[in-house]
Amino acid sequence: MRATVMYGAGDVRVEDVPDARLEEPTDVVLRITRSCICGSDLWPFKSMPADEHGRRMGHEFIGVVEEVGREVRTLKRGDVVVAPFAFSDGTCEFCQEGLHTSCVHGGFWGNGGVDGGQGEAVRVPYADGTLVPLPVAEDDALMPSLLTLSDVYGTGHHAALGARVAPGSSVAVIGDGAVGLCGVMAARRLGAEQIIILGRHAVRTDLALEFGATDVVAERGEEAAERVRALTGGVGVHSVLECVGLQDSLVTAIDIARPGGTVGRVGAPQEPAIPSARQSFVRNVTIGGGVAPARAYIEELLPEILDGTLQPGRVFDRTIPLAGVADGYRAMDDREAIKVLVRP
Amino acid sequence: MRATVMYGAGDVRVEDVPDARLEEPTDVVLRITRSCICGSDLWPFKSMPADEHGRRMGHEFIGVVEEVGREVRTLKRGDVVVAPFAFSDGTCEFCQEGLHTSCVHGGFWGNGGVDGGQGEAVRVPYADGTLVPLPVAEDDALMPSLLTLSDVYGTGHHAALGARVAPGSSVAVIGDGAVGLCGVMAARRLGAEQIIILGRHAVRTDLALEFGATDVVAERGEEAAERVRALTGGVGVHSVLECVGLQDSLVTAIDIARPGGTVGRVGAPQEPAIPSARQSFVRNVTIGGGVAPARAYIEELLPEILDGTLQPGRVFDRTIPLAGVADGYRAMDDREAIKVLVRP
Repeated sequence: MRATVMYGAGDVRVEDVPDARLEEPTDVVLRITRSCICGSDLWPFKSMPADEHGRRMGHEFIGVVEEVGREVRTLKRGDVVVAPFAFSDGTCEFCQEGLHTSCVHGGFWGNGGVDGGQGEAVRVPYADGTLVPLPVAEDDALMPSLLTLSDVYGTGHHAALGARVAPGSSVAVIGDGAVGLCGVMAARRLGAEQIIILGRHAVRTDLALEFGATDVVAERGEEAAERVRALTGGVGVHSVLECVGLQDSLVTAIDIARPGGTVGRVGAPQEPAIPSARQSFVRNVTIGGGVAPARAYIEELLPEILDGTLQPGRVFDRTIPLAGVADGYRAMDDREAIKVLVRP
Repeated sequence: MRATVMYGAGDVRVEDVPDARLEEPTDVVLRITRSCICGSDLWPFKSMPADEHGRRMGHEFIGVVEEVGREVRTLKRGDVVVAPFAFSDGTCEFCQEGLHTSCVHGGFWGNGGVDGGQGEAVRVPYADGTLVPLPVAEDDALMPSLLTLSDVYGTGHHAALGARVAPGSSVAVIGDGAVGLCGVMAARRLGAEQIIILGRHAVRTDLALEFGATDVVAERGEEAAERVRALTGGVGVHSVLECVGLQDSLVTAIDIARPGGTVGRVGAPQEPAIPSARQSFVRNVTIGGGVAPARAYIEELLPEILDGTLQPGRVFDRTIPLAGVADGYRAMDDREAIKVLVRP
């Protein structure tokens, strides 16, 4: 089968790999019908050292069940399913607590002999725990929005929960990528009254306004913080969704949280420490968030997508065939596209 | 009047200072009947650069109202009152939210022309907002426990709240000083089932066991983390109360929190960044806490002290006269005493 392999920074290839096949009785094999490129895929695209063995890519996908392991109970051939960006057994204590990314048997796509999602098929470990059936046909028009349940919408929702967004609260979202935009939608859905998007790309901040943002701050650093304070009676926001992961973003996030406020970070941290330890201490700013257990949120977020109320799939502004995936990486890295959908 | 002034590391003197007197109509003047030395006073005692002007010390005290400003409504001459370690107006939006340490008119004792508590008297700004009357006489036997409401018991309680201690949960407390010991009591009071105290001084950890700790871990660093994991089925604790503030303590705190757990930090941070940013992100460990709004907790914590159910005042293991305060600092710094009570 064909699948995407990254061999180093800027070096993404689609090539023949061994066909996905059942290995454990709890596996299914999925024919992928939609996948996409993630902002987090751009970190290795910028910086991965050359590696002759390469790394299988892609962790967001929808597909159709093709083969079913003999211990799989909830899925059958032909089911259309969405996969979260981590697989999990669905039964361990962490899965039961809704923290599927800490599943004792779980893991991430593309590592340790597990297929990546940017390809024609995947073997899905712990299929009962991992996959969620979708009540639609494989070419339904809702596919882009359903695909965001794999990662970006669940991650934006996790940022909002980690930042303790509450009805009537004030929120700032740092980052105008797909996760930040979904974070705006999630904060609105949770009842935030004021939602300030920090971003400098008009196409993206315009979409943020359509998703529910009330204010746009295009400044950066201390100037951005001053603008946010000016928009919030001088005190800052209750909740900050940190959707970037750079040190400067965290400094700004802590700076614009009001005393007693919370930062929900979902941007993968690019540095080993969280800055502004004294500022957050003196002002009682809590730092929450982390890797999003996207699996935990699919059932909750699904109904408003199915009934058309919410359309997080609008973050996809380009669709490419699998053969064109390298150009998709380039387009996202050059900020030509917010998020690229891949049709194998 | 006599009061304590620190002129540099190791240089604490009791000397004549201007008498406390009313300056604003919202002030009262308090004759101090009990004060004490705080673990946080030891940071400048270890490291303060020499300063010929000196710094007034002490932020925990009980006293009797002597003079009352004309706009004070809730206090009268003769009232016995406890002061939290920060003064606050009691009316601003942050006070109303229970975050009195972020009061827009608030501040800390010993700074900016405000008296310190290790002396014979203090001027109390915003007396209505700051002070809480106590239904006891000035020499009541409950005074040591009542005095902990100024800081250490409220701070331990804040650590437990910041760490989201819940009924039935597992808790670790890092630090066997007075705050850590009060943190054990607070965690027990909030219903924690397992409470592990990390400390190496038997006198202190013995008191922790009497306050409700279930386990003692005397190891440090990675060995301590291994012990905590061994005590918790391999996964770590739901809540960590970080009552030290050193970088190594924070590393351990994040290390021993279970996935999805929370660290409540109340140890004043001695470094500008919070370590282990990636570990906390991957495991969804939330970092909460900060400077404790002790004022917010006094009414809640008072009844069990008044009825004798809880005795946080047992953290005081030495009483000295004001003239002996320099020796009190030395005794705490040498760990001869857990916490020193001062009777002017």
